[in-house]
Amino acid sequence: MTGPTFGSRVEHVRSRFSEALTQRLPPATQYPARLHEAMHYATAGGKRLRPLIVYAAAETLALDARQVDAAACAIEMIHAYSLVHDDLPSMDDDDLRRGQPTVHRKFDEATAILVGDALQSLAFRVIAREEALDPAQRVKMIETLSEAAGSRGMVGGQAIDLESEGKQLSLAELEALHIHKTGAIILACLRLACHAQPDLDAARCEALDRYGKCIGLAFQIQDDVLDIEGDTATLGKTAGKDEASHKSTYPAVMGLRAAKERAAELFCDARLALSGLGDAAEPLRWIAAHIERREH
Amino acid sequence: MTGPTFGSRVEHVRSRFSEALTQRLPPATQYPARLHEAMHYATAGGKRLRPLIVYAAAETLALDARQVDAAACAIEMIHAYSLVHDDLPSMDDDDLRRGQPTVHRKFDEATAILVGDALQSLAFRVIAREEALDPAQRVKMIETLSEAAGSRGMVGGQAIDLESEGKQLSLAELEALHIHKTGAIILACLRLACHAQPDLDAARCEALDRYGKCIGLAFQIQDDVLDIEGDTATLGKTAGKDEASHKSTYPAVMGLRAAKERAAELFCDARLALSGLGDAAEPLRWIAAHIERREH
Repeated sequence: MTGPTFGSRVEHVRSRFSEALTQRLPPATQYPARLHEAMHYATAGGKRLRPLIVYAAAETLALDARQVDAAACAIEMIHAYSLVHDDLPSMDDDDLRRGQPTVHRKFDEATAILVGDALQSLAFRVIAREEALDPAQRVKMIETLSEAAGSRGMVGGQAIDLESEGKQLSLAELEALHIHKTGAIILACLRLACHAQPDLDAARCEALDRYGKCIGLAFQIQDDVLDIEGDTATLGKTAGKDEASHKSTYPAVMGLRAAKERAAELFCDARLALSGLGDAAEPLRWIAAHIERREH
Repeated sequence: MTGPTFGSRVEHVRSRFSEALTQRLPPATQYPARLHEAMHYATAGGKRLRPLIVYAAAETLALDARQVDAAACAIEMIHAYSLVHDDLPSMDDDDLRRGQPTVHRKFDEATAILVGDALQSLAFRVIAREEALDPAQRVKMIETLSEAAGSRGMVGGQAIDLESEGKQLSLAELEALHIHKTGAIILACLRLACHAQPDLDAARCEALDRYGKCIGLAFQIQDDVLDIEGDTATLGKTAGKDEASHKSTYPAVMGLRAAKERAAELFCDARLALSGLGDAAEPLRWIAAHIERREH
């Protein structure tokens, strides 16, 4: 392998992403300013995990970062909007996100609804306007992202989650929930990078798909584990919330140790999916390790 | 002029649209079923004014209805989602819409938020997947619709509206509000039809743009007038609500008679914008007359 590792360049990737994102958000001072200010607030900070996955996938596919800037921004906007809406009083009712007041706490509930709505429109807009991609690529990306974000993906997952509160889910049901709620968007990170290729490389894309499914589910199991083992300060959100709200979680359904083992197994499967890609997949291997060792 | 008028075929156009819409919604029984059922509920009924404008514009431009089915469905989905979110307790807090309980009343608040979110994703998805259009046309449509729907269009208008409550707006401020809130999506109906043309006809599109701006604003002034003069049963929503919630309206700012005159003037301007298009624009003239004589 040549060149510095993805891990050694991750801060550079993050700051490239922040710049790409800022360029694509309306200025915070633009009319209506309160709404635009709140859109900046809602997209500031965070681990930027999804954009990092997009850039890591792009490197694995030997693409230029420029070809996936729009995809990374669009996915982060969808993710950010979903957090704003999920935090609302009628949904998860959270006061704290990334260690800061949630949007409806910092601004107000109506603004939080509108911020989410506007971020979603903007997500599709930034892809539609991306001149580094030809129209057919943009259309494929929008098709994939809208499916992942919609009623058969992320939003569907949130609906299932709300319906499941207070119910004891089976492992299969719990897995279906999280494949929708978290998995669909993480998988979209890999798929959008695949769409940025001028010529589809079906074998590599299939490998990336398998990788994406594994890390998506592993990430969620880990989230449930961290909700038990973590503390509020490290998490930047309220710890122990799942148990308090009687949510089905992996530790609750299969036990804490089995949940940790299942996550470890999925991280192995993720690496296995990349085995045919050689050194080129180093960035995605770093991502898997990065998620595996996270504490929040 | 040849052939039956648009008015004589309007029920046929509406039923064509309903079919196109049903085809593009996930079945109400599909998992997660409660969410999908609520998406059908949210998009059922209504005057279908925006789809009618899209089809009327398509006829004026000598396009096949097939080329604008996706645009009509996408715009109606955006419109429907905005009503669901605007009706929420933290926004306009309405119990009644189209003579039926609003989505958060019929289902619950969380479902209403998610229904809106999912309809927005789906709107962009139906355009991205439309095989009757080439990818460049789809991208232009998505770009135009996302701008019209977002923070510099419809959602921005709703934010301005909320900020304006209890304030006395000037006529210029009130006009800016409605150009965002209602005007942007009505204008998008015309613009999306223009994007469906294989070759851009700049002069016609400019005429349609001017027409769209006029009917958009006229429609809103009339809405304010109807809120005063109409009754709840005819409107299908609560009458007198603007005054009760101290909203700035055209009648409040300029007087009821002047507001009616301004609307009449705008309908004239709309017809004037079409004067160079001859008989081909009959469907759009019918739409203007149809809006002008509406009672709800």
